[in-house]
Amino acid sequence: MTGTFVVVGGDAAGMSAASKAKRDAPETDVVVFERGEYVSYAACGIPYYVAGRVGSLDDLVALTPDEAREERGIDLRMRHAVTEIDHDRRVVTVESETETFEQPYDALLVATGAHAVVPPFDGTEKRGVFTVHDLDDAAAVDAYVARDDVETVGVVGGGYVGVEMAEAFDARGLDVRLFEMLPRVLDPFGDAAADVVASHLRERGVDLHLDTAVSAFGGDRRVASVETDDGSYPVDAAVVGVGVAPSVSLADDAGIDLGETGAIATDAYGRTNRDDVYAAGDCAESQHVVTGAPAHVPLALTANRGGRAVGATVAGTPTPVGDTAGTAVAKAFDLEVARTGILDPEAARAAGFDPVSETITADSRAHYYPGAEPVTVTLTADRASERVLGASLVGADRAGKRVDPVATALHAGLTVDELAALDLAYAPPFGPVWDPVLTAARVLDGELDDT
Amino acid sequence: MTGTFVVVGGDAAGMSAASKAKRDAPETDVVVFERGEYVSYAACGIPYYVAGRVGSLDDLVALTPDEAREERGIDLRMRHAVTEIDHDRRVVTVESETETFEQPYDALLVATGAHAVVPPFDGTEKRGVFTVHDLDDAAAVDAYVARDDVETVGVVGGGYVGVEMAEAFDARGLDVRLFEMLPRVLDPFGDAAADVVASHLRERGVDLHLDTAVSAFGGDRRVASVETDDGSYPVDAAVVGVGVAPSVSLADDAGIDLGETGAIATDAYGRTNRDDVYAAGDCAESQHVVTGAPAHVPLALTANRGGRAVGATVAGTPTPVGDTAGTAVAKAFDLEVARTGILDPEAARAAGFDPVSETITADSRAHYYPGAEPVTVTLTADRASERVLGASLVGADRAGKRVDPVATALHAGLTVDELAALDLAYAPPFGPVWDPVLTAARVLDGELDDT
Repeated sequence: MTGTFVVVGGDAAGMSAASKAKRDAPETDVVVFERGEYVSYAACGIPYYVAGRVGSLDDLVALTPDEAREERGIDLRMRHAVTEIDHDRRVVTVESETETFEQPYDALLVATGAHAVVPPFDGTEKRGVFTVHDLDDAAAVDAYVARDDVETVGVVGGGYVGVEMAEAFDARGLDVRLFEMLPRVLDPFGDAAADVVASHLRERGVDLHLDTAVSAFGGDRRVASVETDDGSYPVDAAVVGVGVAPSVSLADDAGIDLGETGAIATDAYGRTNRDDVYAAGDCAESQHVVTGAPAHVPLALTANRGGRAVGATVAGTPTPVGDTAGTAVAKAFDLEVARTGILDPEAARAAGFDPVSETITADSRAHYYPGAEPVTVTLTADRASERVLGASLVGADRAGKRVDPVATALHAGLTVDELAALDLAYAPPFGPVWDPVLTAARVLDGELDDT
Repeated sequence: MTGTFVVVGGDAAGMSAASKAKRDAPETDVVVFERGEYVSYAACGIPYYVAGRVGSLDDLVALTPDEAREERGIDLRMRHAVTEIDHDRRVVTVESETETFEQPYDALLVATGAHAVVPPFDGTEKRGVFTVHDLDDAAAVDAYVARDDVETVGVVGGGYVGVEMAEAFDARGLDVRLFEMLPRVLDPFGDAAADVVASHLRERGVDLHLDTAVSAFGGDRRVASVETDDGSYPVDAAVVGVGVAPSVSLADDAGIDLGETGAIATDAYGRTNRDDVYAAGDCAESQHVVTGAPAHVPLALTANRGGRAVGATVAGTPTPVGDTAGTAVAKAFDLEVARTGILDPEAARAAGFDPVSETITADSRAHYYPGAEPVTVTLTADRASERVLGASLVGADRAGKRVDPVATALHAGLTVDELAALDLAYAPPFGPVWDPVLTAARVLDGELDDT
């Protein structure tokens, strides 16, 4: 295109789009407005920074503002907030510390991301209570827990952020109390994986409180306790990791449609209901590869891929943003835990499936090869079509990336017997002859044939 | 079925078939004739036994004869050789140490496996020269290299057996000379992987001779040198690992058709051209998932799967043996190396494709996460259809099983842009945001779009 491509938000989706558009169509003016201090940072790296495994916060920045400007030719404006979109006039209103101005656009990408949900209980404003969503958060929590008087940290939320932060604090030598409202940790990873992880967290000394609703943080100006329906637990610091919500007020105010998930509704190319206005990344929906329905999966690959696709489209090559399978992997102390697709039976039924699941445990390597550990696999399929719907895996040795062939199977719409017939890699250091995924498929296939 | 299912050969394919048939149809008489001393042994474990990483040879036996008889109800006859098949009369002739007799069958499985190829050069009969195909070989080579006067071992053949044995001897503290006739090691894994492995072998002190034809073993009664077109190299022991050939004389003599590969021709259910006579495992062909043509891929998963399918079919549930993608993975000292599908351009063209390849190198984990190592990925696709044809991967950190999503893509017939659009698992300890496989697909997709 010739003209101006304006991007609101300079993280994964925004900078991927800007870089791709400028590379594919160098004559385009690409302007990125980022309200914060960082672009292209790896929020997923924060737990490892807090754990002390990453040298510097700068290591989490994939691209500096100077690199974006000088090497990629992007007109990047830091500390510039877009406050309004006028799609009739095709301008956005921008506020910096020193001025407010209008910026015309020919194409616009809303990549405003997501923000940490702060639950409505008392005391979240106390000193020593943190969310961990951006690099400023990371620096703040890192500095705070380095204080001599911090020995115990309360983590509220047992999703992957909560579990990763629990590991990070443990690695720093701190005691960790983890509070989860639901009866299990890592809810989207399914029962079997959750049970294995919960046992492991307890083995590793985490004071784990499941089925426990936090009502407040106690203490004077500084947090001193986590108050729950089950009692009061002293802590010296606290992290709230109960999820993220899409940052959609700018879009919503401009009449851009939101979907049922609360994120911005988009089509296969990331287009919103407004001409030449796109959305991508954590603020936008994408299509789920299993259900075909819109989903909100605020993860890094989806954001990078969606942004890159919008950049290519704006530059003249219409490119689908791609479907999501909801694939995720996390390290939970010594365990690897992963999931893909639809695992929750109610979600499966809501999408019109009749889900059948099997859970098996098999070795991660040949049983005689040093380092073999059990891998627990749950595989879910639709009874009538026998199509694979989802999987979770958990184990101490190379369980995580074993989800990838299942994710691939979801994209290809494979049935359970097709999954069981895959020629996956085998050698004694890498797996048993039948990979745990194949064994799970074989067992589930038997169950489907019997019923 | 009611009647008698006779299986010739008690390794992976044979015992998988026998076990499955007996489980699914307990009324069937299942008789297995094994000419050797072991059943169901893991030949792939031999290098790790020789390296000293596996406690005992017994650990490599998945099922003992007693377990097969008592727990699975299989009529297993050890040291019984089948010498003739008479398909008109539906009997096989069997020889044991004490008798020769005829055994009638209603269904017959030929699972005679493969044997190590012994090349026609002089001196292979000398003491200290070994092949490594079965557990007796493993015990013999293990005992021989334990002698005080063995310091240097010559390995002839740079395929995965040769490379694994080189690592095993190195782990035992021995010096290793490796001889390969071709200009590269691990030929089926492609140029890029071969180059990385060759450099690594040399770094690890292997005296590597590529493009070097061995002509003889020197020495008196005991091997003392490897003679090549490039000179004479002193060794104290030698292993020949130049490949395996299917053991088909029994079948061939009985008028069972062989395919172009030299292995037994079979249909999708493992049936030969003779009624009720099946073949599976290392003696049989299977269909290649990319070319659709018969292939001979003597690997453990193919044998186990094929045998199991024949067992199910004989028991009354017709079950395809499944296609092969030629997926393989090996550990080469500190490297993991894997391949799947069609990599060789000539093989691709012979199958009617116009192959295009790209090789990229990316990190195995987030660049800031400890332990990240480069992974080199070669991806090949057909220019016109953009269908993925094959891939190889090599790297020191978790490169091997990354081949599995590509193998899955081959089974599903995905195109390069479909592969690039997969929602594979990401978190900093497990990969970069774009998995190396996705990056390779993206780059190859760009190459296809540009031409």
